[in-house]
Amino acid sequence: MLFVAEKDLRDKVTTLTKVLPPKSLTTWMETILIEVTDKVAITANDMAACLTILAESSKTEKGTTYVDGKFFANVLKSLNEDVTVTADDKHLTIQSSKAEFTLATTNPTDFRTLNSEHDPKMKIEVETLLKLISKVAFAAAKDQFGVPFNCVLWEVKKDSLRLVATDGFKLAIDQVPTSCDEDHSFLLSTRNMSILVDVLKSTASDTATLDFQLSLLSLRTSDMLARLNYTESTFPDYRRAIPDSYQITVQATKDSLLNALKRALLVDNSRVILNIASEVTLYTSASDAKYTETLEAEKQGPDLTIAFNPRFLLETISHIDTEEVELAFNTNTSPVQIKSPTQDYPTYIVMPIRMVQGESL
Amino acid sequence: MLFVAEKDLRDKVTTLTKVLPPKSLTTWMETILIEVTDKVAITANDMAACLTILAESSKTEKGTTYVDGKFFANVLKSLNEDVTVTADDKHLTIQSSKAEFTLATTNPTDFRTLNSEHDPKMKIEVETLLKLISKVAFAAAKDQFGVPFNCVLWEVKKDSLRLVATDGFKLAIDQVPTSCDEDHSFLLSTRNMSILVDVLKSTASDTATLDFQLSLLSLRTSDMLARLNYTESTFPDYRRAIPDSYQITVQATKDSLLNALKRALLVDNSRVILNIASEVTLYTSASDAKYTETLEAEKQGPDLTIAFNPRFLLETISHIDTEEVELAFNTNTSPVQIKSPTQDYPTYIVMPIRMVQGESL
Repeated sequence: MLFVAEKDLRDKVTTLTKVLPPKSLTTWMETILIEVTDKVAITANDMAACLTILAESSKTEKGTTYVDGKFFANVLKSLNEDVTVTADDKHLTIQSSKAEFTLATTNPTDFRTLNSEHDPKMKIEVETLLKLISKVAFAAAKDQFGVPFNCVLWEVKKDSLRLVATDGFKLAIDQVPTSCDEDHSFLLSTRNMSILVDVLKSTASDTATLDFQLSLLSLRTSDMLARLNYTESTFPDYRRAIPDSYQITVQATKDSLLNALKRALLVDNSRVILNIASEVTLYTSASDAKYTETLEAEKQGPDLTIAFNPRFLLETISHIDTEEVELAFNTNTSPVQIKSPTQDYPTYIVMPIRMVQGESL
Repeated sequence: MLFVAEKDLRDKVTTLTKVLPPKSLTTWMETILIEVTDKVAITANDMAACLTILAESSKTEKGTTYVDGKFFANVLKSLNEDVTVTADDKHLTIQSSKAEFTLATTNPTDFRTLNSEHDPKMKIEVETLLKLISKVAFAAAKDQFGVPFNCVLWEVKKDSLRLVATDGFKLAIDQVPTSCDEDHSFLLSTRNMSILVDVLKSTASDTATLDFQLSLLSLRTSDMLARLNYTESTFPDYRRAIPDSYQITVQATKDSLLNALKRALLVDNSRVILNIASEVTLYTSASDAKYTETLEAEKQGPDLTIAFNPRFLLETISHIDTEEVELAFNTNTSPVQIKSPTQDYPTYIVMPIRMVQGESL
């Protein structure tokens, strides 16, 4: 087996290491499979995700071998020129003009790849999918929470792809127009979402095709193939969390809201009171300090005093792309909807914190 | 008490928090002292270091107060405009055009400052002192090691200031020409060295004056006064660690050496063998991998095979400012001297690792 690892391949090989387990439970998961035909294909697999990078090589000799994935990636990264990779039964050698590395190869009989050989169902711009994910995935819970809170819901419709995530306190929804023959609905874990982001960021391709089959989301670009396990567990009926209409809408500049919320966090990072009248006043107090700030805002509807976790407001408002942000309320026990005044998506829903009887500014 | 905190003061106040303890052992150490006369002086003190920032203010009313230092600094940092700070017996209020913070003040009867009111002994450029520190302080041991390995030795002579640090494995020496009436020699802890660096980086001043009295190094600029406790414990006789002459000198490019050492670390991060002949060959091996690389070099003297901890070579060589680096050896049990071929300082000494009987490439 022989190939020349050119810059293109050396740049992408780090993406493979995202699939390798952080600690070795079973040795074969740390292993990558290198297959050389007229092209080079390198595959990492942890059973929940299987990632292949594909590269051209100016010189190849057919063959297959397995080596430690992280070590292989780190060695290629450390060499700033084209290197020749050769392998026999026992060793893989990586040779640059002056440096030479020799690694032991392994022969894991239990190395499996997740296979999916189906026609692609959907085509999407890499940038579009990356942006869609960035607007939603942050709202999922961290890994210690279970399904479905550590997952992102994919709703594939004939004319749109919608992603939804929630941790029970905040909800994020965004969608883009696409076209697909059939409807699909499934949950992808935050870990697989993060591998997907790495793949989309490192591919040289502008477009990707998607396929949904046999519990695998397959994403293919000209130089990468990701096969990510999904589950079809039920997701909370998030549509019920969204009020049909709002009695109060407030429009304010994104920056003024974000800066005020950051200042409120200095005094209390778990609770901020918003007093919504002709102006919006933020108020926070702790045993030995208090903070108050008044923002210019355009309000429609009655006055309202409502309490929130300031972190949830910060996180969601920071994902709005327009200068102005629209907040829509009903009462101080029902959720706020946060979105751009000119766009329907992304839309965020944040639950308020119960106010103490008689609590106000 | 009243003053206006202008940009200049708001930028510098974060430096004070470096002196505040990371966790509260005694409350008063978390407190800062604010003294307003025609100027504003704000002081933090943890008994090992006492730091005062001085600022002009467009409007002042005399007074003195104490507040929580980190909270005060974070609030000032969060406000992007000039703010008015007022205080009465119980509260300090920070007011911007729209936001207002109120903090409880404290009255710590045991707050002390480290005083030193002596004539300055030495004048030095801020940039010069910063660079001198950067070339030496990294070689001191981390805090878990005791005196003198977690300290930097200051040798003040009539015509030079020399800094020396060692962790027992590597030694760093650098010096600059200065003028001082008397000789001084003392040890400054790595923590106080790091506070000194913060002060030098945040002062608006180009020059600083130094004074050494009553176990305090006092550094004063136009807008800062740092008083740092030093000890006069003995430092190892580092001059004995430096060979008088060398039988072998090798000159190579800094980048080629650094890149090769980084690659060697991938295989074994504790041991690299250098074979010094007409070329320099680096060699590392582990149970399942090995690495070898040959560098162009100019050598004078006999051949030598010698082993080092590659991290110590990396750290020291990366502090040489010239393109070429000179390594000087005697035997494989005596230290290497590392410096620029054109400059005597900074000079680094690294101890080799004992070679196993018969070990070679």
